[in-house]
Amino acid sequence: MTKGRIEAFSDGVIAIIITIMVLEMKVPHGHDLATLMPLLPVFLCYVLSFANVGIYWNNHHHMFHAVKHVGGWVLWANLHLLFWLSLMPFATGFMGENDFAPVTVFVYIVDLLMCALSYLLLENALLAQHGRDSDFARALAKSVKDKVSMGIYLVALVASAFAPLVSLILVAVVAAIWIVPDRRFAKAPE
Amino acid sequence: MTKGRIEAFSDGVIAIIITIMVLEMKVPHGHDLATLMPLLPVFLCYVLSFANVGIYWNNHHHMFHAVKHVGGWVLWANLHLLFWLSLMPFATGFMGENDFAPVTVFVYIVDLLMCALSYLLLENALLAQHGRDSDFARALAKSVKDKVSMGIYLVALVASAFAPLVSLILVAVVAAIWIVPDRRFAKAPE
Amino acid sequence: MTKGRIEAFSDGVIAIIITIMVLEMKVPHGHDLATLMPLLPVFLCYVLSFANVGIYWNNHHHMFHAVKHVGGWVLWANLHLLFWLSLMPFATGFMGENDFAPVTVFVYIVDLLMCALSYLLLENALLAQHGRDSDFARALAKSVKDKVSMGIYLVALVASAFAPLVSLILVAVVAAIWIVPDRRFAKAPE
Amino acid sequence: MTKGRIEAFSDGVIAIIITIMVLEMKVPHGHDLATLMPLLPVFLCYVLSFANVGIYWNNHHHMFHAVKHVGGWVLWANLHLLFWLSLMPFATGFMGENDFAPVTVFVYIVDLLMCALSYLLLENALLAQHGRDSDFARALAKSVKDKVSMGIYLVALVASAFAPLVSLILVAVVAAIWIVPDRRFAKAPE
Repeated sequence: MTKGRIEAFSDGVIAIIITIMVLEMKVPHGHDLATLMPLLPVFLCYVLSFANVGIYWNNHHHMFHAVKHVGGWVLWANLHLLFWLSLMPFATGFMGENDFAPVTVFVYIVDLLMCALSYLLLENALLAQHGRDSDFARALAKSVKDKVSMGIYLVALVASAFAPLVSLILVAVVAAIWIVPDRRFAKAPE
Repeated sequence: MTKGRIEAFSDGVIAIIITIMVLEMKVPHGHDLATLMPLLPVFLCYVLSFANVGIYWNNHHHMFHAVKHVGGWVLWANLHLLFWLSLMPFATGFMGENDFAPVTVFVYIVDLLMCALSYLLLENALLAQHGRDSDFARALAKSVKDKVSMGIYLVALVASAFAPLVSLILVAVVAAIWIVPDRRFAKAPE
Repeated sequence: MTKGRIEAFSDGVIAIIITIMVLEMKVPHGHDLATLMPLLPVFLCYVLSFANVGIYWNNHHHMFHAVKHVGGWVLWANLHLLFWLSLMPFATGFMGENDFAPVTVFVYIVDLLMCALSYLLLENALLAQHGRDSDFARALAKSVKDKVSMGIYLVALVASAFAPLVSLILVAVVAAIWIVPDRRFAKAPE
Repeated sequence: MTKGRIEAFSDGVIAIIITIMVLEMKVPHGHDLATLMPLLPVFLCYVLSFANVGIYWNNHHHMFHAVKHVGGWVLWANLHLLFWLSLMPFATGFMGENDFAPVTVFVYIVDLLMCALSYLLLENALLAQHGRDSDFARALAKSVKDKVSMGIYLVALVASAFAPLVSLILVAVVAAIWIVPDRRFAKAPE
């Protein structure tokens, strides 16, 4: 089945994205715990981004488990999603190394929004392959979480201009919503 | 089937190539959007190279889907292709960090040409395994896009000496041509 | 089988973790072997961490070989383990570049402890999927090595404050214990 | 079949090793081809190491294709091989950035020797699993290339003290010997 290789390539890219983010935490020189303190914002950003990228992998995994056909624009929609995910290490580092300055939080949330949008496009490309009457379409139709997430991201985007920490709390809330596995496709695997 | 491992290894290498290119975008220090402006050429190069490497993965995926036998020189031809692709992050960074200076665009297009050439060699190595009478050979025979691409690359190479931006537009045109999935092998998967 | 993709993603992440640690060994300039001497502590840390990450991969491999069902919290428990493993390159570099200062050894062992703890959580998440009466549960019940390891790590953690080298010897002892393959799941594959 | 995951993990690690070597070629600043000249030794080292790591992947691929059983020490012998391969980017960079100084060539060849030795250990671990009467053992018995390679490496090691370039030519000769696919296991896949 040809979907295996899309999964494998996506796994590879997401595995690298999630792992190279740790390279932003530059090893400090020093002999006491205080040396690590300036790294705290970078570390917190890493945790947040690790969770977000992990959620994308998780949802990607569940969704492709239910996929029967790939083709047409699916490969490009998938690459498009990987593109925006690949900017996460940059956006994460930009935010962590500039102490959550409003503009860096803004850029970070723009990237999250683009990831969410490209995930939606991927869903639609897959939907076009499966047809409106498929099990895949029925599973997708129950979706409400993604619309809620997009809404919260938009609020967070606006908030970043004057209250960047509120924005990040909203981002963390979205992550928390998704950590509960996506029930739409979750029934199939078990 | 032994082709599975060639696909897996190629997926791994291409996934790393496409992802480490983002490391060329060094995280800047600063608190306003202007901080990101100097990164714009590097970002545009990243987009162009992400698209190009993505296209190679896509075509590689479609072609190997139709492959029945591997052996002989196929593994080396595949490694040879991966070698030239592995230089893409370097060529991309060289161009992006030197503001599209003619020589950097020239080097970038030489690398693209070598990728295209080594892809052709891989096709031929696979052809030798399948024979002239195979479905694989018939699918390949309809090819015209790769010859057109090579031609445009050669024009772009010459143009890079005096009009590097024209060269890059030509490179983008080739990418656009390929974003339409390769119909030669596309029928099989669906 | 859906567990295949969890294995593939974990393999990818662990492969990257184990390999990017080598990037901490910065290439020195010089023309004699003495140039390499300052790298010795970094190299020893690399060997130790390579062994530890290798052991996790090995055990993960053996455990998942026996796994029949994944779902629920398994994916998150697995990501949680990968998170702590992903900090190994940082912890390794921190220790190696600061000549085994007590605080760096302390941080390194905290990371090892968190890895061990998250591995335990993953075992429990898998146990919840398989039930107390499963072959998986019976294989797990014979476990004693992980409790011994946790105990030694705790001793090593305390010792790091006044005798960091003793701590590292204890860490090496734990590694040696695990290099003998995990017999609990090892019977199945052969 | 459990060998699949060893292959996948090895593919991942080797793919990363072969790709991160390119990061040693630091992007230079400048507007003419002369800017690239100082990179020539680094580039040549990259080509040589890419070929060598590629050869290991190739032989690993062919050998595991013939493998029926894994277990016991096979996983550790495989990790041991990956360890020495993982030092290739360091050894390559050390040699390339110090203009082939004798000591750097010496270190490079020591790493190649350790790779060859650990490959031999892996063969033996696999032999112990398959027994002296197996097809695997018969395929292995015809081996002569690996002994020849080891011999040439030893000569190259000694030569590195006074004629490093002769050493590198010998290393290139060994690579050339191996680029012809390993016929011992090559029959099976086709």
